[in-house]
Amino acid sequence: MPPVDPSTPAPVSALVGIAAYTELAGFGLLAARSVDAPDLATRQSLALGAERALSRQQALVGLVAPGAGVPAAAALMGPFEGALVEFDTRTRTDDWAEGVLKGVVGHGVAQDFCRTLAAGVGGQHGKRLREVLEVAGAGPAARDGADAEALSVLVRLASADDVLASRLALWGRRVVGEALNLVTALLEQHAELESLTAASAAALGHDAADGSVRSWLVARLTAEHTRRMDRLGLAA
Amino acid sequence: MPPVDPSTPAPVSALVGIAAYTELAGFGLLAARSVDAPDLATRQSLALGAERALSRQQALVGLVAPGAGVPAAAALMGPFEGALVEFDTRTRTDDWAEGVLKGVVGHGVAQDFCRTLAAGVGGQHGKRLREVLEVAGAGPAARDGADAEALSVLVRLASADDVLASRLALWGRRVVGEALNLVTALLEQHAELESLTAASAAALGHDAADGSVRSWLVARLTAEHTRRMDRLGLAA
Repeated sequence: MPPVDPSTPAPVSALVGIAAYTELAGFGLLAARSVDAPDLATRQSLALGAERALSRQQALVGLVAPGAGVPAAAALMGPFEGALVEFDTRTRTDDWAEGVLKGVVGHGVAQDFCRTLAAGVGGQHGKRLREVLEVAGAGPAARDGADAEALSVLVRLASADDVLASRLALWGRRVVGEALNLVTALLEQHAELESLTAASAAALGHDAADGSVRSWLVARLTAEHTRRMDRLGLAA
Repeated sequence: MPPVDPSTPAPVSALVGIAAYTELAGFGLLAARSVDAPDLATRQSLALGAERALSRQQALVGLVAPGAGVPAAAALMGPFEGALVEFDTRTRTDDWAEGVLKGVVGHGVAQDFCRTLAAGVGGQHGKRLREVLEVAGAGPAARDGADAEALSVLVRLASADDVLASRLALWGRRVVGEALNLVTALLEQHAELESLTAASAAALGHDAADGSVRSWLVARLTAEHTRRMDRLGLAA
């Protein structure tokens, strides 16, 4: 058996690839902030979040390469290797709370992006992809999945410190700006993702005039980001 | 239900605590070297290893605090908070391969230490602890568990580059020295671990004269380390 099922349509491989890649990046961001967390409970919580990001990545890869392991994951993510380097460089920070928020915002935009594009995938592939992407995790903050603990850490910090809350609000705007630039760049560089965006817009009832599909996607991701910042008690 | 089962004997709580703490540290070391890995397959492999270290930690905590989550884990690890700071500072490196080897050696010594002490725990607690500690993971390199991928990365690098292999051999000696110093310090600071060491020596047939139990343990851990370096093709 080849690592990736050859019957997988190219747009599905591309969506699984970028989704898997951003989950791996989410794993790394959460794990890194676990390593330098201020207390043991936070360290443990963020490690468990990182583990859930990787579990979801495994579930995504498993959709198109059942049981195939590292080579299949690497093959699917390969076209996106390095895609996050510029985002990462432009949002580098030595501040721990800013690092956690970077993960929440970046990973959040990535997940909303993948969920939106999954709406453009038909048939069984689309159904299974949406199942994995929608079920973010167990527990009360299910929709937040891997980031549930990071979110509650940030809520606790921001609600206790107005100055920090203002700084984080500002930082969140910078991170989301870079994340949305990255989304636009991905669509420019990967025709499969661009075509899925158009299919998704149609499936979700957006009456797209020429050239407006990207703006529709960015507006949609911005709205989700605003809701996320609201839940954090931060001004988007 | 209190987070940790109150019928747990103090030495068992201590052993679970230090084992859980070193698995969390192992998670962090593997995850950090995943984040800056030189290629996607290595990045993915080390992330999966980190995930397995955390799974084992969860299994350990579950032995004495079933289903209790983060507060129980933090309570068990609490007495050991900061125990690895000096080891970590004294083995800091900017070299990626040295960082991977640090994880393999440090995590390896920690696992051998915990396995040895588990031999000193009687009854059902001992049996269940040994089950979790011995079954390191699935696959051909089962005994290496979370570090299987890190080991194969190092074997590949060292076998292709004699200069690197010499440097890593030297580095491994430095890391194991610091790890064994840490083990000695832990026994000095935690009477439960010291008493388990004596019980383990007796259970494993070591005829201990006064004061020789620590030397026995260090000799045993050194021998395991030598075997590990042999498997890597490095001089211990």
